[in-house]
Amino acid sequence: MKKQKIVTIGGGTGSFTLLSGLKNYPVEISAIVSMADDGGSTGVLRDELGVLPPGDVRQCLVALSESSKTMRELFNYRYSSGGLSGHSFGNIFISTLEKMSGNFEKAINEAGRILRISGRVIPVTLTNTKLVAKLANGKTIVGQQKIDDANLAGLKRLKLEPRATANPEAIKAIRQADKIIINPGNFYESILPNFLVSGIAKAIKKSRAKKIFICNLMTKAGHTDNFSVVDYLEALENYLGGNVIDCVIYNNEKPGETLIKKYSHEGEHLVRASNLRLYPKVKFIGAKLLANKISKPQKGDKLKRTLIRHDSEKLAKLIYEIK
Amino acid sequence: MKKQKIVTIGGGTGSFTLLSGLKNYPVEISAIVSMADDGGSTGVLRDELGVLPPGDVRQCLVALSESSKTMRELFNYRYSSGGLSGHSFGNIFISTLEKMSGNFEKAINEAGRILRISGRVIPVTLTNTKLVAKLANGKTIVGQQKIDDANLAGLKRLKLEPRATANPEAIKAIRQADKIIINPGNFYESILPNFLVSGIAKAIKKSRAKKIFICNLMTKAGHTDNFSVVDYLEALENYLGGNVIDCVIYNNEKPGETLIKKYSHEGEHLVRASNLRLYPKVKFIGAKLLANKISKPQKGDKLKRTLIRHDSEKLAKLIYEIK
Repeated sequence: MKKQKIVTIGGGTGSFTLLSGLKNYPVEISAIVSMADDGGSTGVLRDELGVLPPGDVRQCLVALSESSKTMRELFNYRYSSGGLSGHSFGNIFISTLEKMSGNFEKAINEAGRILRISGRVIPVTLTNTKLVAKLANGKTIVGQQKIDDANLAGLKRLKLEPRATANPEAIKAIRQADKIIINPGNFYESILPNFLVSGIAKAIKKSRAKKIFICNLMTKAGHTDNFSVVDYLEALENYLGGNVIDCVIYNNEKPGETLIKKYSHEGEHLVRASNLRLYPKVKFIGAKLLANKISKPQKGDKLKRTLIRHDSEKLAKLIYEIK
Repeated sequence: MKKQKIVTIGGGTGSFTLLSGLKNYPVEISAIVSMADDGGSTGVLRDELGVLPPGDVRQCLVALSESSKTMRELFNYRYSSGGLSGHSFGNIFISTLEKMSGNFEKAINEAGRILRISGRVIPVTLTNTKLVAKLANGKTIVGQQKIDDANLAGLKRLKLEPRATANPEAIKAIRQADKIIINPGNFYESILPNFLVSGIAKAIKKSRAKKIFICNLMTKAGHTDNFSVVDYLEALENYLGGNVIDCVIYNNEKPGETLIKKYSHEGEHLVRASNLRLYPKVKFIGAKLLANKISKPQKGDKLKRTLIRHDSEKLAKLIYEIK
C-alpha cells in the first residue's frame, strides 16, 4: 500500500503533539513550521546571532526523532542559570549550524540527521520576517512576543514585514500531499502566520489533498475570546481564501471542573461546538481528544504551558483513519 | 598484527595535534586529558553550570572524530557576539550533556558517539578541582587562568585543591598501554596537572609501556624561561617520581627568523637541546617536527595561539614507528 503523504502546518507545541503520534503510522510526514516566533530563547538568538527562529523547528524535530531518549531530552534541555539561562540547547544547536553554514535548511537537515527523524521539517519561509498586527483603532503591534502580550480586540489585519515568500520545499510538499493538516496551536501567532507567507494559501487551495483543521481546545484571552469551533474556522478561512477546509476535528470531552476554573481565572474557556450547520459542506468530527496525563510546566521554561492538552495518540489515529 | 595500545596524556591543543595524526594509524588510542583548565569558555561554564572543564576534552574528541567536516567545525565553532560570545559550541554541548545526565563520562561518551571518534577520551580525574601554585616567597596562586597570567619564578610546588583521585578508566588504560606519550602543551597548566592527580604518576611508573615525552618547541615566558629539553625532562621527572621516561622526542628544525623574533618580543625562545648526556639511559630523538602551514588565530578565539607548531603527521609517524 502506498504511504499517505501528510503535510502538517503549525507552530511548535501543537505540532509536537500531533507529530509525536503521527510518526508511529506508515505515513510520509512533511512538517511545515511557522517562522514568526520572536520570543524567549528564539528571540534572543534572532537578535544576537541574526538567525531564523529555531524554537518551533526544534520541537518538530524532536517530535519526529527516532533517536535515543537522551538525544531528545538534550534538544529540549533548558538552562536555568548563568548566561545561557532561558535558552534551550536545541535552539543553540540549530542556530549555530545556521551561523556556520549560512543556511537554515542545511542546519535543519543536519540536526534531523543527528536526531534521526522520520519525515521532514520545512520552514514555511526562509525570509527573516516579523509578525505585525494592525488594529481597528489604528494601532500597530510589531513582533510575535509583543502581540502575545497585547489585546487583539478589534484586530483588523495580521501581516508579515518584510513580505515573506514561500519556501519552495513547502509548496512542493503541499502540492504532493494526500492530507493537509492545520495543527492546533497559538492561533494568531503560530498558525495563521503560515498563511501570511506569499504563495502558501494559494497552494493549499489548489492542492487536491484533503484539508483538515484541528481546532484548538481552549480560547486565548485577548485573542480568541468566546471563539467557537465555527469562529476559528471562519477566521482561518479568511486567511486561506474561503471554502478550503474539508473537515474540522474538534474535541467534545469535558476536562475536570478544577482545570476549567483554573483557565476561567485567566479568561480562557472551552471552545464550544455550535452552529456547525453554518458550514454544510464541511465535515465536523467531534471526538474525545483530551490527554489524560496532565502536562506540567517544565523547570526553566519561559512559556506558559497549557494544562489541557490534546492526546497525541488519539489525534494521530483520527487523522490517519480519515478517508 | 596486534594493534599498538597508545595512551596519550596532555591538555587540549598539543593533544589535538598528536591525535589528529595518530588516528590514521592502526592503533588503539586512549587520550587522557587534564581537568585543571578554568579559563575562557570552560571557566564560565564551570562557574555558571558547575560542570567539569569541557574545553580540552572537546579538542581531543574533535581530533579523533571520523565525522563530517561540518560536525567537527560545529564542535569548534566559537560565538563572537551576544550572550554566547567566547563560548565554543562543543563546550556547551558537553556541559549540557553533563548537566542532563549528571555524569561527565557519559557526556563524553555520547559526544564521542555523535562525533564518531576512533579511540577513547578519558578525563584524568572526575574530581572538581583547581590548580594551585605555591611560590618560594610564600605566595599562593589559585586557578589555572590566574597561574597563566602569573610569573612562576621561584615556583615551589604545583598542587590540586581539593585533592583529586584518578579516574579508574585512566589507570586501566595506563596499565594496558604499549606506549605512553606525554604530549606537548602548556607545561605547568595542562601537562603536569595530570600527574598531580593521585595515582596517575605511580601507575605510569609501574606500567610496562614505553614512556615517551614529546618536548615543547618553545619556552613560555614567566613559566619555563630558558628551559632546554633536559630542563623540561627534569621538571617532568620531578612529578613522575624519577627515572620514568624512556625516550624524549625534540625538534631540531629552525623556524624562520621573523617568527623567532615575534616570539622573542614576548620573551619566548626555541627550546635548546644541550647536555643530553646528563641522562645516559634516556633515548633522545631529534627530528624536523615543525608544521609548514602556519596556524593563524581564529576569529573569536580567546586563546593566544602559537604560530610555531608541531606537524601532526610527522609527530604521529615518529611515535608509531618507535620500537
